[in-house]
Amino acid sequence: MSDLSTATTPAGTATAVAHPNIALVKYWGKSDATVNLPETGSLSLTLDVFPTTTTVTLDDDLTADTLELDGAPAHGTPLDRVRRFLDLVRERAGRSTHARVVSRNTVPTGAGLASSASGFAALAAAASAAYGLPTDAVSLSRLARRGSGSASRSILPGLAAWHEGDDTSSYAVPVTGPAVAMVVATVDAGPKAVSSREAMRRSADTSPYYPAWVTSTRETLVAALAACEAGDFTALGRITETNAMRMHAAIQACDPPVRYLAPTSVRLFDRIAELRGDGIDVWGTADAGPNVVAVCRPGDAQRVADALADLAPVTVAHAGPGVRLVAGPTA
Amino acid sequence: MSDLSTATTPAGTATAVAHPNIALVKYWGKSDATVNLPETGSLSLTLDVFPTTTTVTLDDDLTADTLELDGAPAHGTPLDRVRRFLDLVRERAGRSTHARVVSRNTVPTGAGLASSASGFAALAAAASAAYGLPTDAVSLSRLARRGSGSASRSILPGLAAWHEGDDTSSYAVPVTGPAVAMVVATVDAGPKAVSSREAMRRSADTSPYYPAWVTSTRETLVAALAACEAGDFTALGRITETNAMRMHAAIQACDPPVRYLAPTSVRLFDRIAELRGDGIDVWGTADAGPNVVAVCRPGDAQRVADALADLAPVTVAHAGPGVRLVAGPTA
Repeated sequence: MSDLSTATTPAGTATAVAHPNIALVKYWGKSDATVNLPETGSLSLTLDVFPTTTTVTLDDDLTADTLELDGAPAHGTPLDRVRRFLDLVRERAGRSTHARVVSRNTVPTGAGLASSASGFAALAAAASAAYGLPTDAVSLSRLARRGSGSASRSILPGLAAWHEGDDTSSYAVPVTGPAVAMVVATVDAGPKAVSSREAMRRSADTSPYYPAWVTSTRETLVAALAACEAGDFTALGRITETNAMRMHAAIQACDPPVRYLAPTSVRLFDRIAELRGDGIDVWGTADAGPNVVAVCRPGDAQRVADALADLAPVTVAHAGPGVRLVAGPTA
Repeated sequence: MSDLSTATTPAGTATAVAHPNIALVKYWGKSDATVNLPETGSLSLTLDVFPTTTTVTLDDDLTADTLELDGAPAHGTPLDRVRRFLDLVRERAGRSTHARVVSRNTVPTGAGLASSASGFAALAAAASAAYGLPTDAVSLSRLARRGSGSASRSILPGLAAWHEGDDTSSYAVPVTGPAVAMVVATVDAGPKAVSSREAMRRSADTSPYYPAWVTSTRETLVAALAACEAGDFTALGRITETNAMRMHAAIQACDPPVRYLAPTSVRLFDRIAELRGDGIDVWGTADAGPNVVAVCRPGDAQRVADALADLAPVTVAHAGPGVRLVAGPTA
């Protein structure tokens, strides 16, 4: 430690754990890319599987932030995104100390399950604690949003709605609703040909359906929140599948087209429809990738998982916890 | 023959052959369902495969029209549609004699290749000849449209554009363009869960993307006709695939969603993209069903067919003839 490490600028360290979330009403499109404001609100379930654990340690000896991701030093885009995020944290904290960030994902990466949601939720919490910023849910959700839009929702447990607004007012809030389970079917279709960030931009620029996606999703969110309020799982499930199909349709309508659903994804949606035909209240959704998530009542989750398991590896998930700090800042 | 069969109402007979067409710019949506006017113009290639042969024979002894379809008496919807069509022909011809209709398809039915296009094109020509109506291309195209919208295009050979308009002005016209071949990959996905007619109605009623489908397709048709005019196969191919993806996207956005592409369809589109990566100028399209049609230059057709053949049965098709009468009316 150099002499710059004094009591007025203590080297803090903090560790946080956050979980991914799957949107029932999708976030697809930004109204402001600089501060990550969404064109529409969205609704998601934070899961109890695939946590990300991130430790932020301030170190006065560093001349730049470092990132270790899943045991290996990270460079390029992941490191750049973390550094920009920590610049924002330092600006708010009035600090200039750089940090070592060590992060471990258990989310299958690059296949449509957003590790960036759990990743930036954990980073927001650990960095806020380490740099002495507020760690209440509203502050963390607002901050996590700047790293990755959907991370705003992983701050909260279970069902969460992330609302439109400005840089101050756009954050996620808890939603009371029916009990929801999810069966995540992981479809390996290789690296994505077009990243979600790029596809989101291309949708706004070239999809003739994008304006109607935005206006219809606003209406869909109102209906989804009403279904939550009424505890109506079936209505929420139907809305979920329709909204997912509409997001993929808006993307598919790009020029040139972008297709995220793989043959196995289609087979999974077909199987989910068959299960509905058999009387199980189950609906499908998919983020911008080939993975398919079956949304069902908790009591049906194992039966649904068994019915999908011959098509893809499945993980049963339930409502999970919000972000939590597992070690506070130390001097 | 009864005595009613006199020289003033001679029993005419005529046989016509017509081929299916595949749209490069799709017809999806009606502005007037009564007389089958389309919301937008469309562009297609009449093929040289899968002909339908239809004979219409007037018979004064009949009290109602009869239909034999592929060797068996037809009832229900197919018979009703033929009878309504012949009512229109009789009204225009000022005749009341009923007819025997014998039709033989070679199109794989019910899987997205429209046998109704070749069917109503052949019926329009045979019935017009048998009942003494004009048999020029404009008259036949206008009439065939009343039976099935896309049948208006199967009256013409090769590339044909069917324009918006009113009952008198909406018919297909020939288009000069680059040489185009098609490789039809027939995907067996069982009977369609939702018929195209029903899905077309549901799109207009429940798809938030339908208005943008209509406006963007109008622009797309202008661009496609310009590509034809310029003899630019690549531009036409790219437009074709984007337009097909947009039609399927508009359908997928219905509430509840309608999905026509099967897992094998997605695999075929993936393979077509791979072939493009290998330097072959080939593009994909699909009507409202699981079949996929690869659109390429004639010189590449066999290579494309070979590359798709392990995924689905393939048929190589080229520009085919317009409808033709193979036996004139006899007394």
